[in-house]
Amino acid sequence: MKNEHLADGVLFTDFYQLTMAQLYYRTGLYKKSAQFDYSFRHYPDYGEHRAGYCIHAGLENFLRWMEKSRFGKEELRYLRALKGRTEHRLFADDFLGWLKNNGGFEGISIAAIPEGRVVHPAVPLVTVKGPLVPAQILESSLLNHINFQTLIATKACRIKESGCRQTMIDFGMRRAQGQGANAATRAALIGGADFSSNTGTSCLLGYPPKGTHAHSMVQAFMALGTGGELAAFRAYADIYPDDCLLLVDTIDTLKSGIPNAVKVFDELKRKGHKPIGVRLDSGDLAYLAIRSAKMLDEAGFPDTTIVLSNQLDEMVIWQIIAQIRQEAGAYGVNPERLIARLSYGVGTRLVTSYGDAALDGVYKLAAIKDGARWKAAIKLSEAPEKIINPGGKSVWRVYDARGKAFADYVTLQDEDPRKEKVLFLHHPTEEQIQETIRACDISKIEPLLTDVLKDGRRVCHQPTIEEMRRVRQGDIDRLDPGVRRLINPHRYHVSLSQRLWDLKQQLIRQQKTKTPTRKKRRQALLKGRPETSKGRKII
Amino acid sequence: MKNEHLADGVLFTDFYQLTMAQLYYRTGLYKKSAQFDYSFRHYPDYGEHRAGYCIHAGLENFLRWMEKSRFGKEELRYLRALKGRTEHRLFADDFLGWLKNNGGFEGISIAAIPEGRVVHPAVPLVTVKGPLVPAQILESSLLNHINFQTLIATKACRIKESGCRQTMIDFGMRRAQGQGANAATRAALIGGADFSSNTGTSCLLGYPPKGTHAHSMVQAFMALGTGGELAAFRAYADIYPDDCLLLVDTIDTLKSGIPNAVKVFDELKRKGHKPIGVRLDSGDLAYLAIRSAKMLDEAGFPDTTIVLSNQLDEMVIWQIIAQIRQEAGAYGVNPERLIARLSYGVGTRLVTSYGDAALDGVYKLAAIKDGARWKAAIKLSEAPEKIINPGGKSVWRVYDARGKAFADYVTLQDEDPRKEKVLFLHHPTEEQIQETIRACDISKIEPLLTDVLKDGRRVCHQPTIEEMRRVRQGDIDRLDPGVRRLINPHRYHVSLSQRLWDLKQQLIRQQKTKTPTRKKRRQALLKGRPETSKGRKII
Repeated sequence: MKNEHLADGVLFTDFYQLTMAQLYYRTGLYKKSAQFDYSFRHYPDYGEHRAGYCIHAGLENFLRWMEKSRFGKEELRYLRALKGRTEHRLFADDFLGWLKNNGGFEGISIAAIPEGRVVHPAVPLVTVKGPLVPAQILESSLLNHINFQTLIATKACRIKESGCRQTMIDFGMRRAQGQGANAATRAALIGGADFSSNTGTSCLLGYPPKGTHAHSMVQAFMALGTGGELAAFRAYADIYPDDCLLLVDTIDTLKSGIPNAVKVFDELKRKGHKPIGVRLDSGDLAYLAIRSAKMLDEAGFPDTTIVLSNQLDEMVIWQIIAQIRQEAGAYGVNPERLIARLSYGVGTRLVTSYGDAALDGVYKLAAIKDGARWKAAIKLSEAPEKIINPGGKSVWRVYDARGKAFADYVTLQDEDPRKEKVLFLHHPTEEQIQETIRACDISKIEPLLTDVLKDGRRVCHQPTIEEMRRVRQGDIDRLDPGVRRLINPHRYHVSLSQRLWDLKQQLIRQQKTKTPTRKKRRQALLKGRPETSKGRKII
Repeated sequence: MKNEHLADGVLFTDFYQLTMAQLYYRTGLYKKSAQFDYSFRHYPDYGEHRAGYCIHAGLENFLRWMEKSRFGKEELRYLRALKGRTEHRLFADDFLGWLKNNGGFEGISIAAIPEGRVVHPAVPLVTVKGPLVPAQILESSLLNHINFQTLIATKACRIKESGCRQTMIDFGMRRAQGQGANAATRAALIGGADFSSNTGTSCLLGYPPKGTHAHSMVQAFMALGTGGELAAFRAYADIYPDDCLLLVDTIDTLKSGIPNAVKVFDELKRKGHKPIGVRLDSGDLAYLAIRSAKMLDEAGFPDTTIVLSNQLDEMVIWQIIAQIRQEAGAYGVNPERLIARLSYGVGTRLVTSYGDAALDGVYKLAAIKDGARWKAAIKLSEAPEKIINPGGKSVWRVYDARGKAFADYVTLQDEDPRKEKVLFLHHPTEEQIQETIRACDISKIEPLLTDVLKDGRRVCHQPTIEEMRRVRQGDIDRLDPGVRRLINPHRYHVSLSQRLWDLKQQLIRQQKTKTPTRKKRRQALLKGRPETSKGRKII
């Protein structure tokens, strides 16, 4: 389709952003500036286990979308042609004319926590400030890019940590959402994958793509009767003598695959080459890894890599490692040496964030400028964690005396906790839960939000993926082991300052006095059932 | 990034396809023709419930990828620069020179079951025939596009059916995988969604995008003290008098949202306009729908639509409808009339296929041409359902006397079951399970595979999304209600012909005599544990 690019530009948005834009234009609200915050509400919950931290990712793709997106001729022509139910045009010429001249994101300023950093719920990861219309229109794209990449970077990090930080390769493209595979690969690299099989995205990001051969290659040699698996392995070793990694489970890992691989490795060795190793893709991977390691050791290849793949995720890898520690000794294999020679190819369960396939990030109006004054906005909800933290804010990370991250501290914009002798840490929703920490028990207070865009222009260094990976590793190392735990992790502190807490409570009170009380009983019709029109939950 | 297109073209593939390609080139295997089959192994299993059918989708996006993808200058330059572990180049000039002249998909022929059709596991949905190298390279892209879109079309169909075929709108882009949102929208439309909020993709596919306003619009009016929700609704009605659908839960659905909506609807009515309705986005949707319906009825708006949204899927909708049937009467609301005025906005749980976020589709070598003769290929596995059906095949749908689909029947390519008096239906893996059906009990036998591409050229009509939707609806209507059941659906017959069964068994026997028996005991080291190097499962 020749106009396929239309689906990736400024029309990559939910339609209501555009109907609201026309309303803001007509009512004059388009002249107001607004501030929106992006945050997620909950760590991914995978069912039996859940995350205790997330890894922020996706910002750069969103910024690039902003830079290339504006209402051009084609977009305006499309909007002009759109009709409502009664065949009237939905968008009028005055609005479209205005949009033509105001159809980009030049007025937008953004501050964000950098990609690769450890992040937590209810903290603004990205704050957007600018004229109401563009600040609203970009919502869908921002949510799309950051929700997904943060989800995947988080999963990748868990998998990497679970695998004792051994090499991990993203194999997920065949189970990803179309071109979303490319976003998945980028996020996986930020979060923990060292390489990817996705060739194009590896190319763009400057990582060598990884992969050797599939079962089908061995099958082809078998079907043609040209020497089967051994011949296939030989052909591979012949062409890639210094990069020879063989998939050994097409027929039978221990009876055929490993013995054939050893033959070929011997031949390589005689010719002065060093084989890389083998890949196991089915069966009891822990057991097969032990037996394969033993056979490779005995054949004189103790340094070869053993790549594992097949429906891996952090829990499966955790169990494989536990089983190796239990079982390897019985076969005369040193478990820690074996674990240190493993690599992991991770596909489906990485790109779908197995167990929880969506991050619940939201983009909420925090303040709107009325004349020269910013007015904090709030949206009530019967679920307290859904009530946003109002106004312009700063975010700080507080480190304890050991240098471990102790809390993320959200304050009003003009506060600087580095000047305080004692910090009062308020739980975001529970009045009773408070903590204090004295300055003398704090090793560092670090501001987390960085200016990224000022009036549509980049104002910060654009980090490389490699830099983000280093940032991630540093942040992970500064987390308490309890927070990094796979199952039932310790809950990290996310706290509000006293002043932010007070503002929030004040706005809630104001709002509640304006709206009818909700705790009344239902009409006589249905006696005995409490009246909460929003509180009852379906399923 | 200026070369961003590289990630979407022919390099949108797993790297091993390219290392294998060079091997096929060097060994001369590139001259062989091969046939690969795409099929999925299992219906999506969502946990408490699972699918009894799938809806095929994604083919057109894959074909378009093929048409635009080939190894051009930039791709070849990239491959030329790639180095292995010892800094030797991975791809040699002879291979790259050959690839330059053979780097497209001109030799590929494809037959496929059309998009929108109901499909089942273990049936080849797409068969690819052509020179080994391009037929192998396209694997990753084919799997990516068809796995995902079939997954989403299936989920969309379940949701549509569960909602009594009322209007359903895709709201999923903010929780999709980057640009994968566009693939999701297309698949959702094929599978059951009537509209989408995704503006760009709606534009490309010719569907009017849908959506009205967000909470933030009401919040903005509240924060500015300019009349709150009522003023926001009025402004909206003023601009969109004939398309007025209001989101009523920003403050309190029954106390504020609906009363304000009714005021605005009254004003519209007086001006001669017909309001569309309201959207409920939180709380007990069944209860709120009943109460809202009652209030709208009493206010003289019995024909307005009530759109429900918020974490909907087939199970949530099923429960909402069940609850309405139980509870509406107590409020004097006719449940069936209410159900008929509902619409559903479905987001996260649609685009992530909540409960099962990946379809396990695979692409397997079925045959390879040796001289003039096709040789059937097989890959053994200890999991019988993973053993592929070998050789070139045809697929037929057999309808019983009632006109209901009775079985999908996979035969060798030269068989025509329409000429048989009795069909022998073999279970794909269980020898004992067989059935027969007499021609007189069959109302129709329909070939399912259609030629799509011959030597790289389109040879069939390219159906519109609307045509695919009609096809889907027809196929669904011809399924037994038991197969369409949400929970624990009846298992549809997928059967092999006698000749295909015999070929498969013969190849399995041949293969097994070539490879060592696997049922031996393990070494004395670990007595009492059965030896199956592939059979033990992790988790």
